[in-house]
Amino acid sequence: MGLRKNILYIMFDQLRHDYLSCAGHETLHTPNLDRLAAMGVRFKNTFTQSPVCGASRMSSYTGRYVSSHGASWNNVPLKIGEMTLGDHLRAGGMECWLVGKTHIEADSEGMERLGIDPESVIGKRLSEGGFDVWVRDDGLWAYGPKGWYSKKYSPYNEYLKSRGYKGENPWADYANAGVDGNGDILSAWFMKYANFSANIREEDSETPWLTRQAMDFIEKHEGENWLCHLSYIKPHWPYIVPAPYHGLYGKNDIQPISRHEQEKRNPHPIYKAFMENKIGKAFQRDEVLQKVIPAYMGLIKQADDQMGVLFDWLEKTGRMENTIIAVTSDHGDYLGDHWLGEKDLFHDASVKIPLILYDPSPKADCTRGMVSDALVESIDLTASFVEYANGDIPHHVIEGRSLWPVIHGEKQDIGREFVVSEYDYSQQKMAKKLGVSANDARLFMLADKKWKFIHAEGGFRPMLFNLECDPQEFHDLGDKAEYQPIIQMMYERLAHWSRRMSQRTSISDESIAKMRDADSGVGIMIGVYDENDVAPNAAEYYQGKAQPHP
Amino acid sequence: MGLRKNILYIMFDQLRHDYLSCAGHETLHTPNLDRLAAMGVRFKNTFTQSPVCGASRMSSYTGRYVSSHGASWNNVPLKIGEMTLGDHLRAGGMECWLVGKTHIEADSEGMERLGIDPESVIGKRLSEGGFDVWVRDDGLWAYGPKGWYSKKYSPYNEYLKSRGYKGENPWADYANAGVDGNGDILSAWFMKYANFSANIREEDSETPWLTRQAMDFIEKHEGENWLCHLSYIKPHWPYIVPAPYHGLYGKNDIQPISRHEQEKRNPHPIYKAFMENKIGKAFQRDEVLQKVIPAYMGLIKQADDQMGVLFDWLEKTGRMENTIIAVTSDHGDYLGDHWLGEKDLFHDASVKIPLILYDPSPKADCTRGMVSDALVESIDLTASFVEYANGDIPHHVIEGRSLWPVIHGEKQDIGREFVVSEYDYSQQKMAKKLGVSANDARLFMLADKKWKFIHAEGGFRPMLFNLECDPQEFHDLGDKAEYQPIIQMMYERLAHWSRRMSQRTSISDESIAKMRDADSGVGIMIGVYDENDVAPNAAEYYQGKAQPHP
Repeated sequence: MGLRKNILYIMFDQLRHDYLSCAGHETLHTPNLDRLAAMGVRFKNTFTQSPVCGASRMSSYTGRYVSSHGASWNNVPLKIGEMTLGDHLRAGGMECWLVGKTHIEADSEGMERLGIDPESVIGKRLSEGGFDVWVRDDGLWAYGPKGWYSKKYSPYNEYLKSRGYKGENPWADYANAGVDGNGDILSAWFMKYANFSANIREEDSETPWLTRQAMDFIEKHEGENWLCHLSYIKPHWPYIVPAPYHGLYGKNDIQPISRHEQEKRNPHPIYKAFMENKIGKAFQRDEVLQKVIPAYMGLIKQADDQMGVLFDWLEKTGRMENTIIAVTSDHGDYLGDHWLGEKDLFHDASVKIPLILYDPSPKADCTRGMVSDALVESIDLTASFVEYANGDIPHHVIEGRSLWPVIHGEKQDIGREFVVSEYDYSQQKMAKKLGVSANDARLFMLADKKWKFIHAEGGFRPMLFNLECDPQEFHDLGDKAEYQPIIQMMYERLAHWSRRMSQRTSISDESIAKMRDADSGVGIMIGVYDENDVAPNAAEYYQGKAQPHP
Repeated sequence: MGLRKNILYIMFDQLRHDYLSCAGHETLHTPNLDRLAAMGVRFKNTFTQSPVCGASRMSSYTGRYVSSHGASWNNVPLKIGEMTLGDHLRAGGMECWLVGKTHIEADSEGMERLGIDPESVIGKRLSEGGFDVWVRDDGLWAYGPKGWYSKKYSPYNEYLKSRGYKGENPWADYANAGVDGNGDILSAWFMKYANFSANIREEDSETPWLTRQAMDFIEKHEGENWLCHLSYIKPHWPYIVPAPYHGLYGKNDIQPISRHEQEKRNPHPIYKAFMENKIGKAFQRDEVLQKVIPAYMGLIKQADDQMGVLFDWLEKTGRMENTIIAVTSDHGDYLGDHWLGEKDLFHDASVKIPLILYDPSPKADCTRGMVSDALVESIDLTASFVEYANGDIPHHVIEGRSLWPVIHGEKQDIGREFVVSEYDYSQQKMAKKLGVSANDARLFMLADKKWKFIHAEGGFRPMLFNLECDPQEFHDLGDKAEYQPIIQMMYERLAHWSRRMSQRTSISDESIAKMRDADSGVGIMIGVYDENDVAPNAAEYYQGKAQPHP
């Protein structure tokens, strides 16, 4: 175990797959992430299990599809009993720590039902997605007319206060607000102010603060074997970044918005509803894009610089050779593409995520700098971590696949025919407007390298994109008769996937295999007529002199 | 609460739906169960969620489909976190007790992971399917060359010992064995001896013993509000019954075996494997049927007499007016029908179960004696109990439907389009022989009143029966081209059912509906460009005088 490496599991929030220079962004240079990509493998076809923070992360923390763990949207508690990365790694003797965001909602009812003290070690881990907490900060310290969004303790606000920032909520008033010439707060909840510099010292903003927390964690856990989930809050909204990052990009640096008038002609009703909701409408406005995108790029540039700080430090301290590093995100950000903002749907801007995996071991030398086009899901990263720590993947629980064969050059691919992503919009007003029930407000995406198919529960037609002919996904073919065979094939895949054995988690496939080979020999005999039907000598266990009954 | 009735939830084990005189059996008279049917409603189209003890019961105890709770075969632990009848009823202020069998396997690993002491009240309930235990006895006290089948404490064996029965395992040596003229034990594991009388006083055999346990439970819980799961072990094998019941029926009382040479021509590979396994072959032998069926009938006759004892006592003590009574079974028994023994497949003999539900309240007067042909599943009984205790059914957890509208004459039906039953044969040798993996060794049955469809995972063709033209299910139409439209419809139903939202159990549908109506007002604002995008006065929460950052 002493030889086992540590794992630094870095997640950004809402970082698009294509906002890295190594992924082709032309005006945003991310030399530090590019450096990691050159040292490891970049998986360019990686999909999140759900394009929304909470559901995506619960899949990452359990290694299971959203409809397997059930925490299908933000703030749906991860039901008690679901095994997490922490459970699996600790069983293999590796600690599992959190530095940053999880977005998990504890299943308090479940804990109460099972008599688990939320303040016990187990209770705390259940409340934190299985992690031990070095620092947890979800970066959502909002306050409005009805009070706080979250009643949790904010370590970041406490940090800011300790550094002399005033008021109850310096997260809102400094880290996520600018200031105008009159000294008035310009809250970044108003995207109009995204081009201002956040009224905070750069070193005190969320990204550098978390980088330092991670380095502190690493130093204090010298000699221990751990996975550390360094989970950044940014470049997630509110969109604002401190100087100098607020001024690095202007409207000329914005890449062409990927949208097409065709998309507004006879759109699928659910896509239409997203285009017409408040967010969609906002991100159709040029002024929004021109303010938000440069700020978003600045946040990523700052993140990349922080990666540089971290990687330099790891190298300088000799830790780079002893640390597996993964960099990924929980989902993307539409940024006006397809006339949408935020995430929630399945165009690449939203559902694809960056994934770089660096393994310092010599076995990975043959693939350094490789770009893999394997179809990868976020749960594969979880499966890979668990396999690294435990030697195998408990497939009766974890639904992801190992990436090591690709990293180690043993295979080109991981054998996945299609990826699946899911989305539950039952908590959104749109569901009511569309007249769908809480159970039907769900979407399923299946994609391979050629086709992307989306099934909407509740009686809607499907959506379909030909990714080869239409990589920008402008032409929804879901209502075209000539694509029925493709749609039919996708429905068959969806049906097969939906029948998967996802809940028989209390018994391993190996135990099952053993049982069917075993002659139980413990007395139960079914289908036996007489002594001739059993092995010689077996009958004697059932014979003997009877006593008359009393 | 004082006015709420108690619930006596009676389950027999392996009792066929049609082995009651009220259900049409011509030589087996069950006047006591018939009496209950005349007082209540008999649901003649009731299906078990799985034709095997463990999986069926875990569905009954959770109100959920097998692939929702995951305990898909005998001895697959019910995974920690699954809510049980006990959880739901106690939340409504009703106790939930067990007298008899559950076949539950505790999720010991899960308890250990969550730090739950198996000896605590919660731990014990988790180990017992949510019940408080008055007495638990699964009736499987087998002993063979490799030792005991179950290491659990056997209250029944202890009872027998206290009554003077000798040896370590009087369950095997007396209750489930006869004796020959030489004084030799004739174990009922050998079906050849099924026609002997069990070497036990009738009053000491399992069925009367459990009846007395139930009456004792009821007397000792006077004044409390409870559900009591009186769960008999019989007429499950070993097939043997004490005098006088062993001698009541002979081969002339056996109803025609429902099998047809046609079934052996080109059978579905899985059906073929069941016909050719040890059990199937045994039950194709006339001598097996001629020994077993009269014994099975004797066991049912004894059970019916015990129902008489119980119902008379309830009436005499004035409790009949205050007790809802359900009688059902966990699955049926092929008894040679379709060239099969035991259960495991989906012909009516196996998958249909008896269900009689008696409600003493005046609201049910209008339906007394009614026979309902509604499509009912065993989980509907669970849902009905929970609704009775709590006033509603938590549909985000419980997948069954209420039967009360039928019982109270408000509706003719419960609106179910088709029933579903599942079977996991991964632990059986047959799976290996058929070359299917642990995950693919699964069957799904969907049936409505006209069609019964069976999908076999793993690349097999489906099976299909026309129940109107072929009520005996002799003609499998699953390979006939002309039935493709029906098969297609059934596959669509299966696909829709498989996508059901079964794991979002930590948040109720009502909470979801509330959330989508709510204006959160707690500060998170997405898609807002400037002050014009928010309600008047809302902006002020985000404004104020800024301090220069420190």
